[in-house]
Amino acid sequence: MIALSNIVQAKRVVSNVVDQTPFPKSPILSQMCDAEVFLKKENLQITGAYKIRGAYNKIASLDKDEKKRGVIAASAGNHAQGVAYSAREFGVKAIIVMPEATPLLKVTGTKELGAEVILKGDNYDEAFAHAVEVAKKEGLTFIHPFEDEAVIAGQGTVALEMLDCVDDLDYVVVPIGGGGLISGVASAIKQLDPDIKVIGVTAKGAPALFNSYRAKSVINSKSVRSIADGIAVRDTSEKNLAHILECVDLVVQVDDEEIATAILFLLERQKIVVEGGGAAGVAALMHKKFDYEPKSKIGIILSGGNIDVQILSVIIEKGLIKSARKMIISVTLVDKPGALMNLTDILREANANIIKIDYDRTSTTLSYGDANITITLETKGKEHQEEVRMKLKEGGYSFVETF
Amino acid sequence: MIALSNIVQAKRVVSNVVDQTPFPKSPILSQMCDAEVFLKKENLQITGAYKIRGAYNKIASLDKDEKKRGVIAASAGNHAQGVAYSAREFGVKAIIVMPEATPLLKVTGTKELGAEVILKGDNYDEAFAHAVEVAKKEGLTFIHPFEDEAVIAGQGTVALEMLDCVDDLDYVVVPIGGGGLISGVASAIKQLDPDIKVIGVTAKGAPALFNSYRAKSVINSKSVRSIADGIAVRDTSEKNLAHILECVDLVVQVDDEEIATAILFLLERQKIVVEGGGAAGVAALMHKKFDYEPKSKIGIILSGGNIDVQILSVIIEKGLIKSARKMIISVTLVDKPGALMNLTDILREANANIIKIDYDRTSTTLSYGDANITITLETKGKEHQEEVRMKLKEGGYSFVETF
Repeated sequence: MIALSNIVQAKRVVSNVVDQTPFPKSPILSQMCDAEVFLKKENLQITGAYKIRGAYNKIASLDKDEKKRGVIAASAGNHAQGVAYSAREFGVKAIIVMPEATPLLKVTGTKELGAEVILKGDNYDEAFAHAVEVAKKEGLTFIHPFEDEAVIAGQGTVALEMLDCVDDLDYVVVPIGGGGLISGVASAIKQLDPDIKVIGVTAKGAPALFNSYRAKSVINSKSVRSIADGIAVRDTSEKNLAHILECVDLVVQVDDEEIATAILFLLERQKIVVEGGGAAGVAALMHKKFDYEPKSKIGIILSGGNIDVQILSVIIEKGLIKSARKMIISVTLVDKPGALMNLTDILREANANIIKIDYDRTSTTLSYGDANITITLETKGKEHQEEVRMKLKEGGYSFVETF
Repeated sequence: MIALSNIVQAKRVVSNVVDQTPFPKSPILSQMCDAEVFLKKENLQITGAYKIRGAYNKIASLDKDEKKRGVIAASAGNHAQGVAYSAREFGVKAIIVMPEATPLLKVTGTKELGAEVILKGDNYDEAFAHAVEVAKKEGLTFIHPFEDEAVIAGQGTVALEMLDCVDDLDYVVVPIGGGGLISGVASAIKQLDPDIKVIGVTAKGAPALFNSYRAKSVINSKSVRSIADGIAVRDTSEKNLAHILECVDLVVQVDDEEIATAILFLLERQKIVVEGGGAAGVAALMHKKFDYEPKSKIGIILSGGNIDVQILSVIIEKGLIKSARKMIISVTLVDKPGALMNLTDILREANANIIKIDYDRTSTTLSYGDANITITLETKGKEHQEEVRMKLKEGGYSFVETF
């Protein structure tokens, strides 16, 4: 457990630079889940994630000489931006090591914050090893993303803001990657109001801390793969596991499908962009991963919003099909005058908007003259799709649906 | 001008139900625009838009008898939800008339808030006419979306919150549709701090109030068409034009392309979902539609976040191509063993990720054996695209790009 005094002290330090993000009640989620649900919107934090809290607190704790030599970190994500932003605030030199395949946007984003970027290694581990090596060689302070008491104390300030803002929370739900955020948050809560249950949420594709918590000892993962890249951490930090075993009441996990549903929900109904790791808590609530008394007060940390818009676009597309707002049908049109016109007429009658048509007369599975047509339709829900299917069948069309 | 006392009174009324939305500084926009830019996030308002302020204030102003009889409105958008939500708070019956083609989601969303929905008419005008008719016949109070003093006073409460939160604003930028929001906001500002310049922003596809402001007399549009459906109002309200002529310093307009750029910026860099009308102010700032002294304090109202995710997905796709993060090339592969392999090899060398391939051997423009291949690539910016083009040319491929 991190001493409360360190977290309170960190709050005084980080308040100079971090935003006190909003923590409003979500009427929609509250109604859906028969609870009072509050969302701590760290996705709206400067640099788009809570990570700046820990990084800033750590750099603030360095002595004059360490500040003069500079800092280094390995990250292609939120930690990189947190370190770069914080270092700039202190006028401290920062080097960020990123894997070579890091998207250019993330590289330039970090450079814009004044850091030097080194591209090194095929993956995070190699970048990490290189950063540690450079730190030693050049006398820089290595800033660990989660296994560091000053970093954890900084992350814990999120909890202080939540408790200041909402009285009598029953649950606080926190995403878990390396465990820095939850170690800080749970430490603060258990010292201030031990009745509040702290629930951690891991991604199923990165189960190190989920498995370690159950086994009460360090278990690492062989590999990780998750839409929630921010919490896709492979190895368990022994120190953080100790904090978590001491202060966290329950650890649950959510899969990519559940996370994607939560991201789309937050986008559509809450009007905010939340990355995979950031949406894990809402995913756990929406998919009933833990029990609570009706009307409980539940605070959920949305830890960050740095999601690639290309992935967002895929999540929207898949979500539309899953929620029956889009359907893709393939029909074989026999070689008869008016066959296509009849089909489009039926779709017009069914009020199904055509978004896209692919037309193919050359498949070897087709008779000469016949054509395959694949149509993407905008629909209004399951009942409407049923109506479209009925009308097509009535019209004598057989078809295959793609999901 | 609406009397300040009415707006202050409205604030006392609406504070029971509306959220005081955040109005934080945007460091990124401030840096980009050499100003201090603050965003009033009414997209995070309950029901996803400022509209509830006016609707609630209006319903609150009804006498006991009017409340007993109920209210009616015509809208398929934010006004519908604002009226439905407010009426439910007062236990007042609400009917919302929507055009027949209204997406099911909006219908069910409004029903979920307890309103009765009537689908009537091919467009907004017909729904509007029907609502007025039903109001007369059944003795209901018709709640106009923008031409109503109580509604305008409610919308003006946005300005009071902004001035409470940030001192010494130089500019306040407000989207204009029917002019209800800007009439309330500008009235409040000119009575409290007349030095603040109020700038209105219309969509180019719905220029009624832009043209009317210039001509200083009512000019209506023949038709409207804009990605910003929330502010795509055809006719000028004479009363609101009078308020605007009295209190607004400048009216500018932005086109769909500019609005889409702003929506994508807010999504990617600010982590929030803003609808077309809501992004008009940021679009105007980003595209330099008005002059200001460097370091000016500029407050921009993001009026709402209710955008269809399908449109969002299109905006993302187009935005990726525009910002050189996606490119689509078509190559004719001549009938030679290894032609496709060579091509993919070049793309691998250029580090361009393939997202999608369309392969076609049957176009009549092709020689027998040749094939057209259309490849969608993920790229890292303009320089990277230039590199891809170079490498393809070096490899002897001629190609066409699709934009």
